[in-house]
Amino acid sequence: MRQKVGILGATGMVGQRFIQLLEHHPWFEVAWLAASDRSSGKKYGEAVKWKLDSALPERIARMPVSPATPDDAPKVIFAALDADIARDLEPAFAAAGCAVISNSSAFRMHEDVPLVIPEVNADHLAILENQSWRREAGGYIVTNPNCSAIGLVLALKPLAERFGIESIFVSTMQAVSGAGYPGVASMDILGNVVPFIKNEEEKMQAETLRLLGERGGKVVRPLAAKMTAHCNRVAVEDGHTESVSVKFSKNAGREEILAAWREFRPLAGRDLPTAPSQPVEFTDLEDRPQPRLDKMRGGGMAATVGRLRPCSLLDWKFTVLSHNTIRGAAGAALLNAELLVSLGKLEAQKIDTVAVTA
Amino acid sequence: MRQKVGILGATGMVGQRFIQLLEHHPWFEVAWLAASDRSSGKKYGEAVKWKLDSALPERIARMPVSPATPDDAPKVIFAALDADIARDLEPAFAAAGCAVISNSSAFRMHEDVPLVIPEVNADHLAILENQSWRREAGGYIVTNPNCSAIGLVLALKPLAERFGIESIFVSTMQAVSGAGYPGVASMDILGNVVPFIKNEEEKMQAETLRLLGERGGKVVRPLAAKMTAHCNRVAVEDGHTESVSVKFSKNAGREEILAAWREFRPLAGRDLPTAPSQPVEFTDLEDRPQPRLDKMRGGGMAATVGRLRPCSLLDWKFTVLSHNTIRGAAGAALLNAELLVSLGKLEAQKIDTVAVTA
Amino acid sequence: MRQKVGILGATGMVGQRFIQLLEHHPWFEVAWLAASDRSSGKKYGEAVKWKLDSALPERIARMPVSPATPDDAPKVIFAALDADIARDLEPAFAAAGCAVISNSSAFRMHEDVPLVIPEVNADHLAILENQSWRREAGGYIVTNPNCSAIGLVLALKPLAERFGIESIFVSTMQAVSGAGYPGVASMDILGNVVPFIKNEEEKMQAETLRLLGERGGKVVRPLAAKMTAHCNRVAVEDGHTESVSVKFSKNAGREEILAAWREFRPLAGRDLPTAPSQPVEFTDLEDRPQPRLDKMRGGGMAATVGRLRPCSLLDWKFTVLSHNTIRGAAGAALLNAELLVSLGKLEAQKIDTVAVTA
Amino acid sequence: MRQKVGILGATGMVGQRFIQLLEHHPWFEVAWLAASDRSSGKKYGEAVKWKLDSALPERIARMPVSPATPDDAPKVIFAALDADIARDLEPAFAAAGCAVISNSSAFRMHEDVPLVIPEVNADHLAILENQSWRREAGGYIVTNPNCSAIGLVLALKPLAERFGIESIFVSTMQAVSGAGYPGVASMDILGNVVPFIKNEEEKMQAETLRLLGERGGKVVRPLAAKMTAHCNRVAVEDGHTESVSVKFSKNAGREEILAAWREFRPLAGRDLPTAPSQPVEFTDLEDRPQPRLDKMRGGGMAATVGRLRPCSLLDWKFTVLSHNTIRGAAGAALLNAELLVSLGKLEAQKIDTVAVTA
Repeated sequence: MRQKVGILGATGMVGQRFIQLLEHHPWFEVAWLAASDRSSGKKYGEAVKWKLDSALPERIARMPVSPATPDDAPKVIFAALDADIARDLEPAFAAAGCAVISNSSAFRMHEDVPLVIPEVNADHLAILENQSWRREAGGYIVTNPNCSAIGLVLALKPLAERFGIESIFVSTMQAVSGAGYPGVASMDILGNVVPFIKNEEEKMQAETLRLLGERGGKVVRPLAAKMTAHCNRVAVEDGHTESVSVKFSKNAGREEILAAWREFRPLAGRDLPTAPSQPVEFTDLEDRPQPRLDKMRGGGMAATVGRLRPCSLLDWKFTVLSHNTIRGAAGAALLNAELLVSLGKLEAQKIDTVAVTA
Repeated sequence: MRQKVGILGATGMVGQRFIQLLEHHPWFEVAWLAASDRSSGKKYGEAVKWKLDSALPERIARMPVSPATPDDAPKVIFAALDADIARDLEPAFAAAGCAVISNSSAFRMHEDVPLVIPEVNADHLAILENQSWRREAGGYIVTNPNCSAIGLVLALKPLAERFGIESIFVSTMQAVSGAGYPGVASMDILGNVVPFIKNEEEKMQAETLRLLGERGGKVVRPLAAKMTAHCNRVAVEDGHTESVSVKFSKNAGREEILAAWREFRPLAGRDLPTAPSQPVEFTDLEDRPQPRLDKMRGGGMAATVGRLRPCSLLDWKFTVLSHNTIRGAAGAALLNAELLVSLGKLEAQKIDTVAVTA
Repeated sequence: MRQKVGILGATGMVGQRFIQLLEHHPWFEVAWLAASDRSSGKKYGEAVKWKLDSALPERIARMPVSPATPDDAPKVIFAALDADIARDLEPAFAAAGCAVISNSSAFRMHEDVPLVIPEVNADHLAILENQSWRREAGGYIVTNPNCSAIGLVLALKPLAERFGIESIFVSTMQAVSGAGYPGVASMDILGNVVPFIKNEEEKMQAETLRLLGERGGKVVRPLAAKMTAHCNRVAVEDGHTESVSVKFSKNAGREEILAAWREFRPLAGRDLPTAPSQPVEFTDLEDRPQPRLDKMRGGGMAATVGRLRPCSLLDWKFTVLSHNTIRGAAGAALLNAELLVSLGKLEAQKIDTVAVTA
Repeated sequence: MRQKVGILGATGMVGQRFIQLLEHHPWFEVAWLAASDRSSGKKYGEAVKWKLDSALPERIARMPVSPATPDDAPKVIFAALDADIARDLEPAFAAAGCAVISNSSAFRMHEDVPLVIPEVNADHLAILENQSWRREAGGYIVTNPNCSAIGLVLALKPLAERFGIESIFVSTMQAVSGAGYPGVASMDILGNVVPFIKNEEEKMQAETLRLLGERGGKVVRPLAAKMTAHCNRVAVEDGHTESVSVKFSKNAGREEILAAWREFRPLAGRDLPTAPSQPVEFTDLEDRPQPRLDKMRGGGMAATVGRLRPCSLLDWKFTVLSHNTIRGAAGAALLNAELLVSLGKLEAQKIDTVAVTA
């Protein structure tokens, strides 16, 4: 038996990734697709401009696109909406009793909404019990971070645990798929760098500190570290590359850092289908990680770190890379959903299962 | 009357830029071209794989490529050699009485060799008088910095003067032309970022601090600031973009910083043909500077700064862009030569003039 | 005295090129700018997203954007409108007595509207006298061809004159700037080819045959040749590259073909400021022409041909390249306007002059 | 039991693809790797600059690189050598009794060497019995075509069978991986098209006609059609896109052509592991096939055709795309080897088996 799930914003870039990643999922089955009014009523195959290099599954192509209302929606919803739209729609679905697993920024910093990376701060999920929707209808909203924060935080978490983190400097080189479709105009990025992504630095800074923060009862206190981000767009299709310098509270040697990354397997034993066995992979090739070659490590769910070397300003510097629409978006939400299943927090929604058909 | 000059390494990417920039120069005329043994003896037009988008001048195409020895060379030499080759050849030319205006890294950090950006540290030229070649034969070596350092230092110098600089963080996104030809393989950079350029971070850090340092008599003391560089290669043909954070010794407000850049015109009055009237141009467009749109400001000799905003780790952050083969290489050396003329340091070489033909 | 001109569609990619090319024009001065209602009333500098690598002239930045009506417009109008909008607006301006020099496809195939490349079919201009607007108000519409047709026709015209043309095969690799801004999404073109441009093959085929056709009195009869076009979009910013095979009516040897191109200077003696001295430049480098290196020949107004070799299916094959937004758009219209001046067909509009200010 | 195979030229781009495709192969196991003298003696993991986005298998990384001599080599050899080297080495291995399954151009046009695409001309394999190596030592050479020919021929074969082909026009847009590593310089291809690939047009024309030719006894007679090719390099990592026009001997309607492609399954029933179930896939999306989205169809082994439309010069035109290093190189050779197994022509080599380990 697989659980029926729905996708809000199913025709966008992240919506397409949800479909791709869910196609052979052992626990979930896509049973409902919603998109904007323009698409509603069409077959999905006619409504979507499919931009992935795997084929659009035929079963999905034939599914109708539903209106974006909770009426006939399953009780588990993956949401890939623009923030403006999410702000209205996600609460409506939560209020209707849906578990809304959201990739949108709309509620990430809301005090009662968990912002979670399963390997990093699974315990933050507890605060979803504060949500009025949860109490009143069983529904809730859980979010994953911005695509630029997620690789960074995966690389920092094992270091924060062992050495404490005082300062973080990061400069990103982000792929165009992060901006959706049509997103970045080719005239803006061919042979070019755009040193600006609207609101990205603010989100990246706030979310990183929240993810590395500590939950005290019903509240998450952000990490008390200094952090600054420079966000840049480059001519890469998929995969965000980030130059990072970090200052620790304690002395940390090279081997200790490598051990911290190597031994970071907080989900070991949970058997979550989308979890990579090694969430942070280190490469000692001098010119890696690179998006073209490393973004698909761990099925696109691992962060790859490399170029670890002393920093003459802070303590250490390195490069981290992660796939922005898998680990940084649809895969992140999917892993959150798997964690919720594992924690029994999708139980109320479990009535919604279907016979496994694949 | 224009002064005859020669080019060492004339067939490479920087050698080609020298030819392009010197084509209509009011003071200098290319009279001698040298390259590797493989090219020597051929016509330049046959020896070169011309990669610029302006036409190879016909006069130059017909010139023979000479062996790389000082015998028949003019007394003013622009050198665009790989460091390994420069280490042998440049001293040979200096010992033969030539003023060697070098773009190579071989002698940049040598204590008696000036590493100079005319707008930044013209007074460092004085140390060339320490060189034994100068005393014995009148010749000398003067160098310009690495293409990654030059835009950064132009942006920092006016701030260092007014506010003092304590810490510098920089993360670069460098164009492929900086690696010469064939240089970076297309398989390495299409849809990709390479977070490594051999020795680049070390050079960028050391040269920046030396350029911002102070001359005390015969010695240059590097700036006593902390600095860290992350150097990355991106899919851009020309133009290095750099994300910079900086900490000052004194408080500096936004308007003061803008004024420092705007009023930075240290060469005003010298009438150097290649000097841009505004060496540091500020743009207040939110998504600029960009290499495709801004690299040719000031004829490729201006550094463009933008995105000035507070830094939550140091004091301020901004983006700086400069053309890596004009301001960062051939144009840098040419401006050094013009400054040397202006200071009377090419006088001994001035016997070497020719009637202006253009 | 320079003639005042206006630009319809001034904020688009081609509108920007008009501004750039007209900035130092000896005959024309931009006196009026119009764009969509959204821009109307703003300063041009605020309304435009300037995407060229030369600076937006300050005088232009301060000019107001006018509504797109002929009321206060000058009598010479460069039009860079989408076809749908041009279909309504251009006749309105012609009916108001304006000479509308249009880059739009809306009227290119209209029997009374000249479709002209000055070097190719200047005599077709005569048919503008058929236009009712001309008779009633002095105004008219003159058009230039699609950016994909113009380089091809320049290369073919001298061959058609000497050898006759029976069949033309062309496969294009077109730059993204041809689609305007935002135009092609980066997700569609990075590391990719798009083998489709809407209506492009049809336009390219019809326009090519019309341009090479003969005027008989008031009518243009298209060339009676067979032609097929394949149009593709590639990851190039500017410059359309085209693979061409052609069958002649007479035998043509390699030297004869080269002579035909070399001697093709139909505008010699007219002194049109934007006309290149050599409209078709041949390169014998084995791997040229290339857009990055050759698009700016003749100030962006020359077509570069290369790789001339026998074709085992038709007679000869070669590659042709031209700049799609200069020779293929704004420069094409500007050269048409210069030709009209030279022919006395802008006389009625000449009252509109201004003192030369530059 | 799997058969032990060796790879000649194992460190190059095609050698790497062989390793990737053979990693989980049910019939073959890589047991021997050879490369140039420079690599010989090292571990493969140290000798190779791995450029694929899947991980280098650890077992392979630890294997030694052998000298390129047949002494200890297995009897089945995949060869990915430059033509110059292949000319000497491949005969040496064949003379030593090896089945040399070659991707090189060295012997493709040799009268006794089969040039084969299994779906197209499997019967041409018979001519390998003419080879003296075969008679004397059991060894032989079998080749697959150039990466530019293979997709074209797959698309043409079903049409040739049903309608006869008289004329072929093709213009290619080829990926950089076809040139190996480092191959195409980034300075040559970023924002650019290179309308020249040395010897490519000649190879593509000759090989296409040979592949579509008929075997009469011991001889292959090339197809008596006219063909012309224009070969261009574009900024694409993997996947060759080709614009094709074709003239048939008989009338062919759109539906007949689509049926010919759809029903083309000549390997059905053979169960070759690398054979795609649908060798020619048709897409009716108006802007496809595209390399980024379609190159991996059929595991990288299918050719995708699209944009079928009438040609005003020949009969029909369309676009074809195929993966140049899978279907166009390593996958092509692997499929040839599988066909040879299926035909019993690797029997003599079968003593060389190993226990299946995976």
